Amino acid sequence: VEPGARAVSIIDQTQLPHRFEVARLSSLTEAAQAIAQMRVRGAPLIGVTAVYGLWLQLLEDASNSALNLARQRLVETRPTAINLRRCVDDAVSVLEPLAPEDRACRALELAHALAEHEISLSQRIGKHGAEVLRGLWKPRRGARLNILTHCNAGWLATVDHGTALAPIYELHAQGVPVHVYVDETRPRSQGYLTAWELGQEGVPHTLIADNAGGHLMQRGQVQACIVGTDRTTSQGDVCNKIGTYLKALAAKDNGVPFYVAVPESSIDWSIANGLRGIPIEERSATEVHDVSGRDEQGQVRKVRVTPEGSAAANPAFDVTPARLISLLITERGACPASAQGLLSLYPERG
Amino acid sequence: VEPGARAVSIIDQTQLPHRFEVARLSSLTEAAQAIAQMRVRGAPLIGVTAVYGLWLQLLEDASNSALNLARQRLVETRPTAINLRRCVDDAVSVLEPLAPEDRACRALELAHALAEHEISLSQRIGKHGAEVLRGLWKPRRGARLNILTHCNAGWLATVDHGTALAPIYELHAQGVPVHVYVDETRPRSQGYLTAWELGQEGVPHTLIADNAGGHLMQRGQVQACIVGTDRTTSQGDVCNKIGTYLKALAAKDNGVPFYVAVPESSIDWSIANGLRGIPIEERSATEVHDVSGRDEQGQVRKVRVTPEGSAAANPAFDVTPARLISLLITERGACPASAQGLLSLYPERG
Repeated sequence: VEPGARAVSIIDQTQLPHRFEVARLSSLTEAAQAIAQMRVRGAPLIGVTAVYGLWLQLLEDASNSALNLARQRLVETRPTAINLRRCVDDAVSVLEPLAPEDRACRALELAHALAEHEISLSQRIGKHGAEVLRGLWKPRRGARLNILTHCNAGWLATVDHGTALAPIYELHAQGVPVHVYVDETRPRSQGYLTAWELGQEGVPHTLIADNAGGHLMQRGQVQACIVGTDRTTSQGDVCNKIGTYLKALAAKDNGVPFYVAVPESSIDWSIANGLRGIPIEERSATEVHDVSGRDEQGQVRKVRVTPEGSAAANPAFDVTPARLISLLITERGACPASAQGLLSLYPERG
Repeated sequence: VEPGARAVSIIDQTQLPHRFEVARLSSLTEAAQAIAQMRVRGAPLIGVTAVYGLWLQLLEDASNSALNLARQRLVETRPTAINLRRCVDDAVSVLEPLAPEDRACRALELAHALAEHEISLSQRIGKHGAEVLRGLWKPRRGARLNILTHCNAGWLATVDHGTALAPIYELHAQGVPVHVYVDETRPRSQGYLTAWELGQEGVPHTLIADNAGGHLMQRGQVQACIVGTDRTTSQGDVCNKIGTYLKALAAKDNGVPFYVAVPESSIDWSIANGLRGIPIEERSATEVHDVSGRDEQGQVRKVRVTPEGSAAANPAFDVTPARLISLLITERGACPASAQGLLSLYPERG
């Protein structure tokens, strides 16, 4: 947000990695659409964007009904990530008691504070995660540490630093030779965002098809997996981008540690069993059918890759049960993926 | 092969599912390139194509040195599938003792016989596999049977019928309501070939990203998995298209039967442990970087999907250990994936 502007600027992630474009959101509708279309994506970032969306609405109309309608529209954009609902609900509960004329200004403060908060969570996850990964690197006597990640939980997905990528950036900054295997993450291919981010930061990396990770783990070519989470349950189940579960199974089968970077904002203390309790977003089949890329002239083009007449299904998330997770890495430190583990770090939830 | 022609016709699978094109191979070089570039693919089909390639060479030059050079060129095109090497070696051992002038004619006979043999293996696998799947369908009281498959092991990959798809075609012909979840199978996306084939045969199916299968199994939406194999070991390990292992892990974790359709031609009796013994083909990174599809005008275009400057790795196969496989379905019937299981069907190998 530029001072005095009635708009918030975003990196349009649907244009990456082909084009770097900054877009301006200047209304609730634009903010809600940006979230639904995944122009902004990543659990922490959509929570923050949603509160900026509330602010944009309140600039226009700060009545109770406008506030509640805005709340509902924002929450409905993406059902799986908990941040979105929580950030919006928390903001509304602060704003509702205020006089309408005070609401917009307060909403902007809340959005800024939330952005700062997410940055600070990311930084602390980076520090704790780097410590855990350093422990894996030490016995390697200087050989590079190979880490596999799925989807994008970097600075594009948060506000800065990232969750799953924050420890990797921290290690890289410390001079540890780290190399990242980046899952493509079909159908939306957020792995290209991760590869682009890692390239910007100078971190060595290799893109692989989502199918390849199990094979690499069987061959001892991966020392750790680390991913983000869209919703973490009180017993440590993790709901993350579709395909995460398959990598966790392969990690378990090959004795590779599987870590999840968990900002407190992703924990849903009201749900224990992730398979039973978390709604899984089903997105449009066109995300499976259509692929965008650069043609020989460098122009971005969309092509249809699937056969005419074949249907496609597109569940966007899956649940990785706690039993497959080695450690949750939170802003308060690392803990086992269990109710007890989480309560040891968040005793106030006991 | 048309009577009198000095060429063999193939369906060019690199053009599917966008265009159906028949190409003519009229020399050893064309045959070897078609195999290496995956214009023909699928373990049974490349074995047959290679023997036709030998014939094409012998039409030109039937000397010992030409025969052995042809053998070597063909075997080097694809290292993982055992059929290719075995078919070529078997043919050479029949042809070598013959007078050079008799070799070409005999090679053509061998190629025809091999094609017939593969068709007969496929038919029998279809019959035995359908019986196994019917057993899963019976308790469903009429509800459709959902089967997940990875890659393409249909009639495109064999000579007719297919291996993994043969039982599905057989069930469909018997009137059992079957529905197939088709893994996209990045990076070469052979799932589009499977979807196209199933569409041609009128079999209901849904394409999914490779990431989605575990989630569907967690939700009870898949009653069985069935895949093909490029090489099967004497203890029942299976080397198949990259990503097969991940689906087998998910099947095991969710109690979903995981079947492999195994023509005898895929069994390598000389290797027990698949992880130690089978060479895994590493293919070009461009297969990860570039994607082909139809633009809005229906023109087929290739686009670059990955970020500039990011490397990619492309292992083409992985090994699924026997412990994850419920049954091997061979042309002689079904058996447990174990040395004992295989020997019960192939006692002559004991």
